[in-house]
Amino acid sequence: MALIRSVFQDELDNVSQSLVDLTEMVSTAMSKATSALLNSDLKLAEEVIANDEKIDDYQHDIDSHVIDIIARQQPVASDLRALVTALRMGSDLERMGDLAHHVAKLARLRHPECAIPSELIETVTNMGRVAVELTNKTGMVISTRNTEMALEVGLDDDEMDDLHRQVIAKLIEPKWDHGIESAIDLTLLGRYYERYADHAVSVSRRVYFLVTGKYAS
Amino acid sequence: MALIRSVFQDELDNVSQSLVDLTEMVSTAMSKATSALLNSDLKLAEEVIANDEKIDDYQHDIDSHVIDIIARQQPVASDLRALVTALRMGSDLERMGDLAHHVAKLARLRHPECAIPSELIETVTNMGRVAVELTNKTGMVISTRNTEMALEVGLDDDEMDDLHRQVIAKLIEPKWDHGIESAIDLTLLGRYYERYADHAVSVSRRVYFLVTGKYAS
Repeated sequence: MALIRSVFQDELDNVSQSLVDLTEMVSTAMSKATSALLNSDLKLAEEVIANDEKIDDYQHDIDSHVIDIIARQQPVASDLRALVTALRMGSDLERMGDLAHHVAKLARLRHPECAIPSELIETVTNMGRVAVELTNKTGMVISTRNTEMALEVGLDDDEMDDLHRQVIAKLIEPKWDHGIESAIDLTLLGRYYERYADHAVSVSRRVYFLVTGKYAS
Repeated sequence: MALIRSVFQDELDNVSQSLVDLTEMVSTAMSKATSALLNSDLKLAEEVIANDEKIDDYQHDIDSHVIDIIARQQPVASDLRALVTALRMGSDLERMGDLAHHVAKLARLRHPECAIPSELIETVTNMGRVAVELTNKTGMVISTRNTEMALEVGLDDDEMDDLHRQVIAKLIEPKWDHGIESAIDLTLLGRYYERYADHAVSVSRRVYFLVTGKYAS
C-alpha cells in the first residue's frame, strides 16, 4: 500500500527529527557536565563549554528553517500550531543546553577541587541521571508523539524536585561544615538541574497538547 | 497629509501595544515583589502571587492573537519575522513575571521575618530599582523601536550584574553571620533578579534586530 504524503508533512517530520537531534546534543552535554562536576574533570568541562555554541547554532538553524516553512507553505490551524510549537521546543532545548553549560562552568571554576562534598555525591549523581533520562525520554516523546510517555516526564520531574529538596536539606543541617561558598555552589547547581528538568517537562507538555488538544494535568 | 496604513500594520501595532501593556504588568509585579521582600509585607507578596496568573493569561492571549494573524494574513519576510519575534518577546516577559512571583514567594516564606539582612538592604533595593528601570525602558523600546535605548538596556544589565556580584561577595565574607539558610535565600534572589534582567535585555535585543537586521553587540 502506497502512502500518499505531502511535501509539507515531510518538512514537518524533518523538523521533528532535527529537534530529536538537538535533544541528543543536550543530553550528551548534561551527561558530560555532570561527570565533569563529580570527577572534577577539567578537560570534559571545557569540552561542554566549547560545545554550547554548536547547540545554539543548531537551534538557530531549526528556527530559520521553521520560519522558512511558514513563509513558503502558509500553513493554518494545526499545521501552523505544530510549527510554532517547534520554535518553542527549540528554545526550551537551547536553554537546557545553557544550563548544562552552567554546570560545566562551575566544575571548571572549582577545579582542581571538586565542587561536590562527599555526602552529596550520591544525590548529585542521581540528579545527573534523572536529567539525562528525562532528556532521552523527551526525545522519544518528540519522535513518537507518545502521550503516556509525555506524562511520565512529569513524574521524572517530581523525582528531580525531591533530589533538589534533599540538596537544600543537607545544606541547612547544623552539621554542614563546607562553608558558605560551597552552599552557594550547591544552591545554584540545584537550581540549574531543576530548571533543566522543567524545560524538558515543558517540551513534553507541548507535544502532549499538539496530539490531544488538551493540557497535561 | 493622510497616511495610508494597512490593516496588517494596524494589527502589528496592536500586538506591540499589548506587549507594552504586558511589560507594565511585569514591572509593577517586580516593583511590588521587591517592596514586599524589603518590608516583609505579606499582603503585598500575596497580591503579586495572586496576580501572576493574570500575566500568564495576558501573554497567552497575545500568543493566540499573533498565531491568528499569521494564519489569516500569511505574512512573509520581515512581517513574519516581526510576528515570530512578538511570540518570543511575550515569552520573555511572561518569564519575567514568573521571576517576580518567585521573589514574592520568598518574601512570603520568610514572613514575618525579613529575608534581607540589614547590610544587604541597600543592594537589594538597588537591584529592585534597576529591575524596574530596565523593564520600563524595555517597554519604551518596544513602543518606540529606539535602537539607542535598546542598547542602554544592556548597560543597565551590567549594573545588575555588579549588584549581583556585591550580594555574593557579602555572603562569602568571613563576617557573614546570618547562616546558611539566609545565604541560600540571597543566592536564589540574586539569580532571580539577574535572570529577570537578562530577559529584559533579550527583549530589547530582539527589537534591535528587527529594526537594524543586526545583532546588538
